[in-house]
Amino acid sequence: MTDSILKDGERIDQLFSSDVKIIQNKAVFSYSVDSVLLSRFPKIPSRGLIVDLCSGNGAVGLFASHQTKAQIVEVELQERLADMAQRSITLNKLDAQVSMVNDDLKNLLQHVKRSSVDLIFCNPPYFKTSETSKKNLSPHYLLARHEITTNLEEICAISQQALKTKGRLAMVHRPDRFLEIIDTLRRYKLAPKRIQFVYPKSGKDANMLLIEAIKDGSQDGMKILPPLIIHKDNGDYTDAIFSIYYGEEHD
Amino acid sequence: MTDSILKDGERIDQLFSSDVKIIQNKAVFSYSVDSVLLSRFPKIPSRGLIVDLCSGNGAVGLFASHQTKAQIVEVELQERLADMAQRSITLNKLDAQVSMVNDDLKNLLQHVKRSSVDLIFCNPPYFKTSETSKKNLSPHYLLARHEITTNLEEICAISQQALKTKGRLAMVHRPDRFLEIIDTLRRYKLAPKRIQFVYPKSGKDANMLLIEAIKDGSQDGMKILPPLIIHKDNGDYTDAIFSIYYGEEHD
Repeated sequence: MTDSILKDGERIDQLFSSDVKIIQNKAVFSYSVDSVLLSRFPKIPSRGLIVDLCSGNGAVGLFASHQTKAQIVEVELQERLADMAQRSITLNKLDAQVSMVNDDLKNLLQHVKRSSVDLIFCNPPYFKTSETSKKNLSPHYLLARHEITTNLEEICAISQQALKTKGRLAMVHRPDRFLEIIDTLRRYKLAPKRIQFVYPKSGKDANMLLIEAIKDGSQDGMKILPPLIIHKDNGDYTDAIFSIYYGEEHD
Repeated sequence: MTDSILKDGERIDQLFSSDVKIIQNKAVFSYSVDSVLLSRFPKIPSRGLIVDLCSGNGAVGLFASHQTKAQIVEVELQERLADMAQRSITLNKLDAQVSMVNDDLKNLLQHVKRSSVDLIFCNPPYFKTSETSKKNLSPHYLLARHEITTNLEEICAISQQALKTKGRLAMVHRPDRFLEIIDTLRRYKLAPKRIQFVYPKSGKDANMLLIEAIKDGSQDGMKILPPLIIHKDNGDYTDAIFSIYYGEEHD
């Protein structure tokens, strides 16, 4: 039955800890650990309005959906990815709670009211357009990974407009852009409050960061959360990551 | 023999991993894990000039001394602590390499030439004068912990003047002041390059950070080093900290 919902090259992956099924296509776009961690990082409001910017195939919003009764709006510019996300919403019978907007995030206020959003998730393109490593990428991955169609500045600007006062932006990004992330957030009066660094293995530098900022929040009281380490030395997932993927209470 | 070097209430503590002996007085001032970690955090130049600002009883500079042939200048405003540090220098037979300046760090350029320093260590007062928790502190601890006689701004200003181009400032501080630390460093053209967060136990928020900034460095390429966790769940030191205190190769 579910086969009919799939297009060429697609498959259905399941995040066992949340029962959510996601339509993926490795050649086009697959979610990765970034999305899983982002969906669990902020405190999720039980009701209200959540937006998932740069949603790709919809993974972050879908993972968050079973923790809340809030309405969730996924925003993705790429039609191919938005189409996968829409079919995943239907596959999970979440059409009443989750909706897909296939548009540039700059146009967000055409889809949600100004100052109405409780929480924005964003797993943005990590790389500046000036950074190389673009070879061998499909156009879909290229746009998802490089700041070609949007950038940090635009994400912070639209978040400031869409969030309620004290609403929160939760983002995953790379540590080598940390200073720029902090500066850009604050330029748009989004006060960084919680940061968690993610390390590929024990003894390695961080390769990912999760950051939560509060609209019009004070600049005081920032917390650096416990480190999150992805792999054991033998390459297996650490217990913390295993339980995030496969269930059990997370710490 | 060493008894004659001690004043009332003082004792000699030894950092076994470095063979250095430090004169301490719990009622006046004792170094703690902050100083030990700071002394091991930056790459220590093999020659040249190192300054230890807010040196207290001299622990950081003394711990660093056996890793380098550089001259080391310790700077401490409090006469009582500077006196302990001077006697520790003599106790360790390091008078030829390490010197003590009992002065306000604002006057550093009266003691070292402008743009001459390769590395500055600083374990500064952590708390703003507005923060409470001042009760029950001896005047010595009060000045060592609160920004009464100096502050982040003054430390960065004098570091910019004293350091060579590409010279480095290595500081230990508290995560809740992280944004202010980053901003103040950059205001004085000290580019943050390496940051390590220190956690009291696994699963707890960071309570300390180590940060290294380069004078007139570029704003790119910041690294978040592997997390450092002080205690195991049972309260013992972790293996990493144990080896820092008691020897063996550090990772």
